[in-house]
Amino acid sequence: MFTRVFFLLLLAMQVISVVPGALGDEGMYPMSELEKLDLQAAGLEIDSSLIYNPDGLALVDGICKIGGCTGSFVSDQGLMLTNHHCAFRAIRDASTPEHDYLAEGFTAGTRQQEAPTLGYTVRITDSYRDVSADVLAVVDEGMDPQKRTKAIEKKMKQLSLAEEEAHPGKRAEVSEMFLGKTYVLFLYTYLKDVRLVYSPPLAIGNFGGEADNWMWPRHSGDFSFMRAYVGPDGEPAEYSEDNIPYQPKVVLEVGSEGVLDGDFVFIFGYPGTTYRHRSAAFLGYLSEKYMPTVVDWYGWQIQNLEASAQGDRQRELALAARVKGLQNTYKNFRGKLQGIDRLNLLAVRRQQEKDLQEFIDADPVLKENYGQVLTRLDEYYQARAESAAYDLWLRYMLRSSETMSAALTVWENAIEKEKPEIEREWAYMERNLDQTTNSLVTKADTFDPVADALIMGELMKRAGGISQAEDLEALDGMTGADGAEKARKYLEKSFKKSSLMEPDTLLEAMNKSTEELKKMRDPFLRLVAELYPPYLEMREENKRRKGELDQLQAALQEVKRQFQGKDFVPDANGILRYTHGRVEGYSPKDAVHYTPLTTLEGMLEKDTGHKPFNVPARFRTLIENKDFGSFLSEDLGGVPVNMLYSTDTTGGNSGSPVLNAKGQIVGLNFDRAWEATINDFAWDHSYSRSIGVDIRYVLWVTWKYGGAEWLLEEMKVDFE
Amino acid sequence: MFTRVFFLLLLAMQVISVVPGALGDEGMYPMSELEKLDLQAAGLEIDSSLIYNPDGLALVDGICKIGGCTGSFVSDQGLMLTNHHCAFRAIRDASTPEHDYLAEGFTAGTRQQEAPTLGYTVRITDSYRDVSADVLAVVDEGMDPQKRTKAIEKKMKQLSLAEEEAHPGKRAEVSEMFLGKTYVLFLYTYLKDVRLVYSPPLAIGNFGGEADNWMWPRHSGDFSFMRAYVGPDGEPAEYSEDNIPYQPKVVLEVGSEGVLDGDFVFIFGYPGTTYRHRSAAFLGYLSEKYMPTVVDWYGWQIQNLEASAQGDRQRELALAARVKGLQNTYKNFRGKLQGIDRLNLLAVRRQQEKDLQEFIDADPVLKENYGQVLTRLDEYYQARAESAAYDLWLRYMLRSSETMSAALTVWENAIEKEKPEIEREWAYMERNLDQTTNSLVTKADTFDPVADALIMGELMKRAGGISQAEDLEALDGMTGADGAEKARKYLEKSFKKSSLMEPDTLLEAMNKSTEELKKMRDPFLRLVAELYPPYLEMREENKRRKGELDQLQAALQEVKRQFQGKDFVPDANGILRYTHGRVEGYSPKDAVHYTPLTTLEGMLEKDTGHKPFNVPARFRTLIENKDFGSFLSEDLGGVPVNMLYSTDTTGGNSGSPVLNAKGQIVGLNFDRAWEATINDFAWDHSYSRSIGVDIRYVLWVTWKYGGAEWLLEEMKVDFE
Repeated sequence: MFTRVFFLLLLAMQVISVVPGALGDEGMYPMSELEKLDLQAAGLEIDSSLIYNPDGLALVDGICKIGGCTGSFVSDQGLMLTNHHCAFRAIRDASTPEHDYLAEGFTAGTRQQEAPTLGYTVRITDSYRDVSADVLAVVDEGMDPQKRTKAIEKKMKQLSLAEEEAHPGKRAEVSEMFLGKTYVLFLYTYLKDVRLVYSPPLAIGNFGGEADNWMWPRHSGDFSFMRAYVGPDGEPAEYSEDNIPYQPKVVLEVGSEGVLDGDFVFIFGYPGTTYRHRSAAFLGYLSEKYMPTVVDWYGWQIQNLEASAQGDRQRELALAARVKGLQNTYKNFRGKLQGIDRLNLLAVRRQQEKDLQEFIDADPVLKENYGQVLTRLDEYYQARAESAAYDLWLRYMLRSSETMSAALTVWENAIEKEKPEIEREWAYMERNLDQTTNSLVTKADTFDPVADALIMGELMKRAGGISQAEDLEALDGMTGADGAEKARKYLEKSFKKSSLMEPDTLLEAMNKSTEELKKMRDPFLRLVAELYPPYLEMREENKRRKGELDQLQAALQEVKRQFQGKDFVPDANGILRYTHGRVEGYSPKDAVHYTPLTTLEGMLEKDTGHKPFNVPARFRTLIENKDFGSFLSEDLGGVPVNMLYSTDTTGGNSGSPVLNAKGQIVGLNFDRAWEATINDFAWDHSYSRSIGVDIRYVLWVTWKYGGAEWLLEEMKVDFE
Repeated sequence: MFTRVFFLLLLAMQVISVVPGALGDEGMYPMSELEKLDLQAAGLEIDSSLIYNPDGLALVDGICKIGGCTGSFVSDQGLMLTNHHCAFRAIRDASTPEHDYLAEGFTAGTRQQEAPTLGYTVRITDSYRDVSADVLAVVDEGMDPQKRTKAIEKKMKQLSLAEEEAHPGKRAEVSEMFLGKTYVLFLYTYLKDVRLVYSPPLAIGNFGGEADNWMWPRHSGDFSFMRAYVGPDGEPAEYSEDNIPYQPKVVLEVGSEGVLDGDFVFIFGYPGTTYRHRSAAFLGYLSEKYMPTVVDWYGWQIQNLEASAQGDRQRELALAARVKGLQNTYKNFRGKLQGIDRLNLLAVRRQQEKDLQEFIDADPVLKENYGQVLTRLDEYYQARAESAAYDLWLRYMLRSSETMSAALTVWENAIEKEKPEIEREWAYMERNLDQTTNSLVTKADTFDPVADALIMGELMKRAGGISQAEDLEALDGMTGADGAEKARKYLEKSFKKSSLMEPDTLLEAMNKSTEELKKMRDPFLRLVAELYPPYLEMREENKRRKGELDQLQAALQEVKRQFQGKDFVPDANGILRYTHGRVEGYSPKDAVHYTPLTTLEGMLEKDTGHKPFNVPARFRTLIENKDFGSFLSEDLGGVPVNMLYSTDTTGGNSGSPVLNAKGQIVGLNFDRAWEATINDFAWDHSYSRSIGVDIRYVLWVTWKYGGAEWLLEEMKVDFE
C-alpha cells in the first residue's frame, strides 16, 4: 500500500542522511528500564549513571512535579523552571487591582517580593519499588471482575498508607504500570510553599495563543520561574515568612550555548497517558465513538460559551481558562482523529491483530490460553460503544457544569465519609480530602451561572433520543426539544434559588451528611441526589469493566510479547519517564519541510498588533535594536525562540527540561506538533515532534525584557 | 533594519551553499539582450546560438502564442503543448449534450476527432526590428502631452500597416519597450485553424482549483495538447477539413527524464506587464489607492455573484469563468499588497529615490535636466490618486457588467468607424474589428442579467459620495443608498426591455451608426450614450497623462541608468522574453521550507472526494497500483507532479515550456507562488518562484490516464 506512512518514512530517510548518530526513538522509559538502553550509542556524552543512579544522586533528582506539570531545579536556592501555562493560575492569583501580572508579566525584585501561590505543591520522588506481587496476591484467576478491581484498589491504598506510616511526612502512591499486571510504589516528598519569581507577560508567554496551539512554527515564551520554600528546619511546611529556600538534592546546569539542528537531546518528565498497547477494538471505540462525541460536545461548549460572554470582559475572563481547556482537548482530538485517518491506523492495527491471531491459532497451548482474547476485546468495546451515548451523556450532565460537578462532589463526599478510610473512593479519603475541597472552592471562584444554565439546558435537550436518559425521572418532561421550555424555566428558577456555589456554602456542605444536605433544599443537590443511583450504577459497572479489561489487556500484552519476541515499554501513566531524540525538523506534507528552530524574526512576521499575535512595543524595540547579548545564534541570524525535537512525549510532559548530551538544560518542553497529537496511539520518527522553548530565549527574555539579570547569575549562566 | 528582506536573504544564502553553479536571476530578457549574458556560466550546456539565433533557426522558434498564453511545438505535425486553463474555452466549446469534456477530459483518437476551436489563433514571431527612431521622430521636446501620445500612437499604427503591406498575410505590431523611449516592430504569422487534441478532466487539469491558485505545494495537471493546421498550400487558413497539420520551423524536444532539485532551467514566453522601473509614487498610488479599490470591488462581486447563483447549477456554470477571473486578480492583488507590506517596499523605494535625488542634486547639469523628475512624478500620481475614486468607478460602471461593456463597444464602434482607419482607436481599426466583434459575441454567450443587474445596482449605490458620479445626469436620483429603490426599478424595467445581449442583435448593432443605434431605443445604449462624453473626457485625459508620464518615466530611466552605472532589462510588455533559474525551493516563513517537487502521493493527501480536491477513482487506482512506467522518480519515491523554479515570470508566461540545460522541455509553466505575486514590482531570489507542471506528469497522465500513447510516440518520447 502506497500510503502516507510509507512516504513519510521515505522522507524521514532523506532527513536521516544528514543527521549524524542515532535518531529519536519511540519510548517513554521508566527509570527502571534505562539500564537496557545504550544511551552513549544514542548520543549521550556523559555516563548514564550521571543521569540516573538508583544507588545515589543523578540529574533525574533535579526534576520535580509542580501541579500537573514537570519542573526542574536550576539553583541551590530552590529556583525552578516550568511552563508559563503551568504557573498561569499563580500569576492570576498574584494579580491585584493595581497590577494585572498576566498582562504585565511578573518580576520579583527581591525574595520578599516573590508571590505566594494557592494550591501549588512541588513533588519530589524519593524512591520506588515494584509491588506487583503484593498487589496481585489479592486476586485470583476466576474472580468476579468488579470484585477484582475493588480488591486491587484496596490493596493499593493499603500499601500506600503503610508506606506513609513508615515515612512520616512523606506521601506514597502505587501506580499501575501495565494494566492489571505490574504495580510500583512511589514515595514522594511534597513541598507546600511555592512562590512565583518571574513570568513574562501573556503576550510573550502565550504568544500565538489558541491559534498556534499544537502548531509549528511556534514562537511562544511558555516559561516561568518559581521557588520552593521549606520551614527553617528544612522540612516541608505551609507558607510562612520564616520559611527558607529549599535546597534541592541536585541542581540542573543551564546550557546557555543552546543547540544546533541535529543535536542529541533527552527529557525527564511525567507523561500522562498513552494507548499504544491497546487493541484495535479500543482504537475503533475511541475514534468512532468516544472522540467524535467529545469533539462535538466540546465544540458546542466552546462556541456557545464564547458567544454568551462576547462583549462582557469580566465573564470572558472568568470563562477564559475553562474555554482554553476545552479548546486544548478539542484541537488535540481533532488532530488525533485526522492522524488516525491519515495513517489508516485502524486498518493497520486490525492487520497486526490478524497476524497475531494466526500466531496464536497455530499453537495449541497459546490457542487454549489466548485464543479468545481479541474476540473478547472486540465484544468488550462493542458493549462500551453501545452504551457510550448514555454513559458520556451522564458523565457530562454531572461534570460539564461547575454547579452539577460541585453538587456531585458534595453529595458523594457525604456518602463516602460514612465508610472506613480504606473503603472510600480515592478523592474522599482523609489523606486526599483537603485537595478535593481546595479544588472545589477554586472552581467556585469562576462560577458563571449563565454558562452553567446554557450547558445544562443543552444536555437536557441532548438527552432526547437517548432512551436511558429520557427515562430518568429527575428530568421528567425536560428532555429533548419538546422539553426545552420546561427545562429553561426549571433552570431559571433553580439558579435563582441555589446558593450552593458560594465558597462558604461549599465548605460547610463538605462537612454535612446526606440528611443535612437534604435540609439545604438546594435544587442542584436534589437533582444530583436523584441522579446518584444511576451514576453509582455506572461507576460500579466501570469497575467491573476495568476488572474485565485488566485481565484481557494483561493477556494481550503477554501474548504480543511472545509474538514479537521482545518486551515493551509500558504505556505512559503519569510516573517519571525518560525519552531521547534529536533536534530535527520534519515534513508535515508533500513538498513542505519544517526546520527545527524558530527565531525572533518569525515572531515579528506574525505580529498583527492584536491578540494573540501582539508583540509588546518594548519587546519589538529590543529586537530591532538587536540587543541580543550572547544569545544570538550566528547560524540562525537571530535569537532562537522555539525548538522541535524527536523525543517521545505526551500531555504531562509540560515543563520538562530538554537536556543536551552533557545533561545541561537547553530547552523547556511545552507542546507537540499537530501531526504528533497521534503519538498517544502511534509514535513515528517521521512525524512525532515535541515543541520546546529554547533556553536562549528563556534567558534573553528574563534578562533583557524582564530585567531579572540576577536570576541568570543565580543560575550561574555565562552571559554578556 | 532587521526586516524580513534581510532574513530572507540570509536564508537564501543558506540555500545557495547547497546549489551548484549560478542562481536564478532577475530579468525577463528580450531576445536582443541575450548576447549580453553568459548563459554557459549560468548553467546552459548547449551553445547560446542554439537557443536564439537572429540569423537562423533556434529553439526560440519553436515557441508560439496561443490566445493570451504561450505554447510550444512538440512535433513536426503542429502538435502544441500549453496549459489546460489556456485551452479551457476550447474544451468547453467542444463539449456536447452527450459529452462534458471539461468533466471527462478530451482525447482525440484520430486526427479526424480533433476538435476545431472558436476564436483560437496561434501567433509565430517571424522577425522584429528596433523602430524607436522612426517613432520618436514624430514628437519633440515641448509638445503637448496629449498630442504627443496621439502622434506616437498614429506612427505606431502607420509602421504596422506599412509592414503588413510589405508582407501580405502577416501581421505587424509595434511594441513599446521602455515607456516613451524604445519601440520595436514585430512581424507575426497567425495560424487560424487550431484544434484540441488531448485534455485531462478538470479534476486533474485544475486540481486544487481556486483554493490552491497562487499556492505551493501544488498538484495541478494544468496542461493540454492542441494542434495547428494550415491550408493545403502551407499558408495560414481558416478551418477546413482539407487543411493539413502545420510544420513548425523548429520542434522542441521533450526531456522525459525530468529534473532534479538544483537543475538549471530556462523559459521563453510572453510575460505581460511588470512595474519594476516605476517610481515610488507609482507604487504608492497602486498600493494605497488602485489595488485596495480593485480588491474591494472584485471581492464584492465574487461574494455576491457566487451567492446569487448558489444552487442554480446552470447560472453557476455560466458565471464560473467570470468569477474565476475575478478571483485570480483578487487573490493576486491581495498577495501583492501583503508582499509590499512584508517587504516594506514603499519605504525601500522612497529611500532609493532619496539617494537618487542626492545624486542628481550634486551635479548641476543633472540637476538642471532631471532635478524635478521625482517631484513631478509625485505630483502626477497625487493627481491620479485624487481622481481615482471617480475614474475607477466610471471604468467599472462601463465595464464590470457584460451589458454595459457590450453597449459601450457597440456605441464607440459607431463613432470610431466614421474616422479614417489610422485615426481610430486600436480595437475599432478594420484589421482588429473581427476580433473585437468575436469577443463581444463570445461574452454574450454567458450573459447573466441577474448578475449584471446586481453589479449595476451596486455601482450606482457606490456612486454616492463620489461627487462627479453623483452629478451625472444619466443617473439622476439613482445614486447612493437613497437612490437604491429608484435604481432597482430602473434596472428591472431596463433588463426586461433590452434585447441587446442577443448575439444577432449585437452583430447587427456593430454595423449601425449612432443614429441607427438611437432608433433601437435600447435602455443600455441610451445610458452609454449619456455616459460617453464623460468617458471620452477620461479617455483623452488618460492620453494626456500617458504623454506626460512617458516623458517623466523616460527621464527617470535615463538618470537612474547614470546613477547605477548600468543598463536595465525593460519591464515586461507582452513580447517574447527569456529568463533562467534553477529548480529550487524557498522559505515562505520562519522555520518553513518548501521543497521544489510535489508528488502523486501529495495529491492523494489532499484528496477530499469533493471539488476542487477530487481525485478521480480510476486515477487513484493507477496510483495505488504504482502503474508509473518509466516516469517514477527514484529520488522522490513517486511520480513528480509540479515543480518550483527561480525564474523571473509574470502573467502571460502561462503555457511557457520550462527547458533544461540541454534545451529539452522538462515542464510547463502555469503559475507563481504566493510570495512571488510581488514579482511585478520586485523580483528577489529568496521568494520569487514560478510553478510548472513536471513533464513526467504530463506524459504519465497523457499515457496512462488519457490512453493517448500515440502522442508520446509522436513526440518521440522514450517510455515504457
